[in-house]
Amino acid sequence: MRLRSGAVDDAAAPGRVTPVDRDAIEAAAARIGAHVRATPVIEVEAELLSTPSPTVLKLELLQHAGSFKPRGAFNRVLSAGGVPEAGLVTASGGNHGAAVGHVARVLGLRAEVFVPSASPAAKRRRIEASGATLVVAGEIYDDAQAAADRRAAETGALLVHPYDHPAVVAGQGTLGRELMLQASFDTVLVAVGGGGLLAGVASWFRGDVRVVAVEPASIPAYARAVEAGEPVEVAVHGLAADSLGAKRIGAVPWACASPFVHEAVLVSDDDIRAAQRRLWDGLRVMAEPGGAASVAALLCGAYRPSPGERVAAIVCGGNVDPATVTGV
Amino acid sequence: MRLRSGAVDDAAAPGRVTPVDRDAIEAAAARIGAHVRATPVIEVEAELLSTPSPTVLKLELLQHAGSFKPRGAFNRVLSAGGVPEAGLVTASGGNHGAAVGHVARVLGLRAEVFVPSASPAAKRRRIEASGATLVVAGEIYDDAQAAADRRAAETGALLVHPYDHPAVVAGQGTLGRELMLQASFDTVLVAVGGGGLLAGVASWFRGDVRVVAVEPASIPAYARAVEAGEPVEVAVHGLAADSLGAKRIGAVPWACASPFVHEAVLVSDDDIRAAQRRLWDGLRVMAEPGGAASVAALLCGAYRPSPGERVAAIVCGGNVDPATVTGV
Repeated sequence: MRLRSGAVDDAAAPGRVTPVDRDAIEAAAARIGAHVRATPVIEVEAELLSTPSPTVLKLELLQHAGSFKPRGAFNRVLSAGGVPEAGLVTASGGNHGAAVGHVARVLGLRAEVFVPSASPAAKRRRIEASGATLVVAGEIYDDAQAAADRRAAETGALLVHPYDHPAVVAGQGTLGRELMLQASFDTVLVAVGGGGLLAGVASWFRGDVRVVAVEPASIPAYARAVEAGEPVEVAVHGLAADSLGAKRIGAVPWACASPFVHEAVLVSDDDIRAAQRRLWDGLRVMAEPGGAASVAALLCGAYRPSPGERVAAIVCGGNVDPATVTGV
Repeated sequence: MRLRSGAVDDAAAPGRVTPVDRDAIEAAAARIGAHVRATPVIEVEAELLSTPSPTVLKLELLQHAGSFKPRGAFNRVLSAGGVPEAGLVTASGGNHGAAVGHVARVLGLRAEVFVPSASPAAKRRRIEASGATLVVAGEIYDDAQAAADRRAAETGALLVHPYDHPAVVAGQGTLGRELMLQASFDTVLVAVGGGGLLAGVASWFRGDVRVVAVEPASIPAYARAVEAGEPVEVAVHGLAADSLGAKRIGAVPWACASPFVHEAVLVSDDDIRAAQRRLWDGLRVMAEPGGAASVAALLCGAYRPSPGERVAAIVCGGNVDPATVTGV
């Protein structure tokens, strides 16, 4: 399934004013540069992902805390103009929580992280290992977010939203900036949960390359938003619900992404599993379901590059129990 | 434990004639370039490996077949001036066998791979998946090599030695060349089995950077050769025996490496396990024991960089059952 966003065909889109511009991303890159890893890219041969041409993979799963999330979290905290005594509070399917725990440890702050019961053990361990306080609240990410919002109101702690804040989007946008410096390509595939990474990458490229949103068919929050012309609520289930399981695209990410995202494609859980397996068998990269979604779109044909089209895919997370990938 | 090779202090060493020179490595790079991946490097912060400065990791485990071995195998086969009807025959602890299987598949050749019973299931599966014929012969790599030698004499197949051939060393040397183009550093740490990778890297750098040999204390073939002034036989056991388990350094690798290797350090199996775990927990890199040995030398202090010394470590293989690393 492919949905054209439409807005990118608007000749005015590249000049559109959105909540996050390139200057904000440049500023974020300068602010967080000492705290995040420049993650590598690798060009893989066409055979690996059954594409017409080689693909560039951005190995962002090698980032601190195992996903891209520290980019946004560091930028949010370092641009807040001071952190209250109560520290940081956040909600997360797991990756953002691990990132906030990491940020708190590095900066010497307290942190409370609310996760839903859907958050897997590997991610909970990672959050606790950072020294953050872990609280399980509700079944899906949105339940945990509601609990974190209440807690922030109680304690005065700085709420570090996983995606719906311009500073978070600008931080994720540093990935787009970094990728542009590392490789040249026509199209970049980005997995979507709440939309923070998609929004950051789209806010950087601003129509200069085709940005394709990839999400599980079981959580089509971006695809439904494109149809509706605004974020709408969807049911949340399936393999990647722990990382891509937001009920709706955030308002800030939607405003940032929708003018510049060329199309949205959906992948099945089986497609994601096959991509995880291919990345391990053929490349020794151990990606989590959400991290493999962009690759799944190529492997299953949900996104079919034209001959000669240069494609980049962001492998954005690796917080997974490897046994679920190898089947051992 | 640190042993100085001594010869590197010889002012004449950089000009020394060895079986593999830079021209041979340049020629190998041109010959195999279309068939191997340019694997990425990542600079990791000092904290990750408890070093005074950041370390550059060369992620060669992302190579085809999960280790550096296709570099040498492709160069050996493509420089042989033709392959007999009987195809390729080789012996291997596993990684080289998987590489030869890969080479045979890509080039449309037959291949027979002899492995010892010490070769783990993950590697045997990889060899069989390539389409090569797998034969288990003996308990350690050297037993399998003897069987492969006999088989080559019987069938006339091209023997692709895992390390003791100038074309194999030149192929592994392309890793040194590639790394030089990617990063600048004072010292590079290289794991040693039969010595092919060490010899290739040393043959490229020729004293321009410090090359440090890292091997398991349970298989100190290079360290003993340094003491004896020539390759000598050692017992083979321990965690990394499947990839670093040659009884003695090959004659060609020794001639190539010994003039240019600055020192040899030993790491314990526990050091290797800790390095595998750190690479997974802190970087989401899943290395096999032999692949993590170079990192182990930093983490355990077997090699202690000076303040300001820029160090690179080659993570050279990832053919491992992840459950042995995560403990799940």
